Amino acid sequence: MEKIRKIVLLGAGNMAGHLSKALVRCGLRLEEVMSRSPESGKRLARQLGARFIEKIEDLNQDADLYILAVNDSSIAQIAGTLRLKNKIVVHTSGTVGIDVLNPVSRKRGVFYPLQTFRKGKRIRFSNVPICIEADQAGVERTLLDLATRVSTSVHVITSEQRKILHLAAVFASNFTNYMYAVAEDLISQDDIPFDLLAPLIRQTASNIRHTGIFGLQTGPAIREEWAVIEQHLELLKDRKVYRDIYNLMTQSIIQQQHRNAKL
Amino acid sequence: MEKIRKIVLLGAGNMAGHLSKALVRCGLRLEEVMSRSPESGKRLARQLGARFIEKIEDLNQDADLYILAVNDSSIAQIAGTLRLKNKIVVHTSGTVGIDVLNPVSRKRGVFYPLQTFRKGKRIRFSNVPICIEADQAGVERTLLDLATRVSTSVHVITSEQRKILHLAAVFASNFTNYMYAVAEDLISQDDIPFDLLAPLIRQTASNIRHTGIFGLQTGPAIREEWAVIEQHLELLKDRKVYRDIYNLMTQSIIQQQHRNAKL
Repeated sequence: MEKIRKIVLLGAGNMAGHLSKALVRCGLRLEEVMSRSPESGKRLARQLGARFIEKIEDLNQDADLYILAVNDSSIAQIAGTLRLKNKIVVHTSGTVGIDVLNPVSRKRGVFYPLQTFRKGKRIRFSNVPICIEADQAGVERTLLDLATRVSTSVHVITSEQRKILHLAAVFASNFTNYMYAVAEDLISQDDIPFDLLAPLIRQTASNIRHTGIFGLQTGPAIREEWAVIEQHLELLKDRKVYRDIYNLMTQSIIQQQHRNAKL
Repeated sequence: MEKIRKIVLLGAGNMAGHLSKALVRCGLRLEEVMSRSPESGKRLARQLGARFIEKIEDLNQDADLYILAVNDSSIAQIAGTLRLKNKIVVHTSGTVGIDVLNPVSRKRGVFYPLQTFRKGKRIRFSNVPICIEADQAGVERTLLDLATRVSTSVHVITSEQRKILHLAAVFASNFTNYMYAVAEDLISQDDIPFDLLAPLIRQTASNIRHTGIFGLQTGPAIREEWAVIEQHLELLKDRKVYRDIYNLMTQSIIQQQHRNAKL
């Protein structure tokens, strides 16, 4: 296992910013930040006490770890240019396989923090699950060691598992946020303050500690209250998209309930 | 304004149990519990220090408030039988109008706590928004007074607003829980522990304090990452229902984004 001392970061977006700051808070040293956006790159470099680098060719070749915290399409692009001799390189994506890094180095891995990162909102990284993947056992141990310095929730998973996890996260987070947005849209048209829904949203999320989440389902669909469902569809008669979502969700919940009853 | 001293509760389900216990904790007296299910009715009556009553005809006629905390279809049924002279009667439903109580008493209202109630899970009622409606100003003041004894979030809203709010709650809570259930189903098939998704779910829910929720949208749909979307649809190729949901949600998010861009 190698000890990570000097880190080079490629990227200056949300993921790059949150992860690198967490690493620095845990006593690691960010040496260089490379970004195609000089403005955010320079700002992040300054915050980290790192050098800002504009071109891949100018990167320090002697760091212990290179983190590609860039969007999915840029990973392949950078991997086409970056060449490292025996240095560890990782990307942070939920959807890209580890093999995209094949041209860069023999020591490659994935370091995927599973959380939704927003600008300006500090995330307590100690709770963020970090999913590790590596081809070599030594690299895996090094990345595990690094991950456990920033988080108490560290997991070794395969590229296939990571893709499924990312897909599940889209349902659990992106689609969920969209449901909140639809709810906000509906009540705001009727001058109802969103505060009325906030405790419900928090309670629903906090109920999920236990598994068997479908068993927590409440509301008109699971109870097959057709009069209520009809009333809701009537209220949505001029909102085709919301009506389609309502119909599909309601049907899916009822079907799932019937399938479970048969098991 | 009348002072509520003696309360009669009709119903012994989740809503009845949670609400009546909150009232008792705030020093109010639950006189009688009526339920068609003797088992849960007797149990709740015992917990509240109240009498259990089996038939509407046997109910005390001298209480100050009658709460119909039963399911929607039972409200109309009970309202067809219950006759009260000048006593306040309320129901607790999000979807039923106030006028269903017309035959029961001239003093009628709605007392709708907006929260998802589960058996065995105690809810801190002080945060639960309570939505009040009444035909008469005096009844409204009485119900407001009562509501502020159990919650810091009390709102006077109309039947129409309440119906929209209930519809919004279906999106914000029921459909959201279903999204969690889909996520759990997807990862459990791949032996990934649900713990990995829990921090993401909590963070997504805790982000909603601000309004403009659609602006918090992250993920492949809002970024129109078609390669990722294709990968996800491929992973869902044998899960028609989930695939349909994924498609509809993704399209809706993208359309909404384009509409917003035009504004």
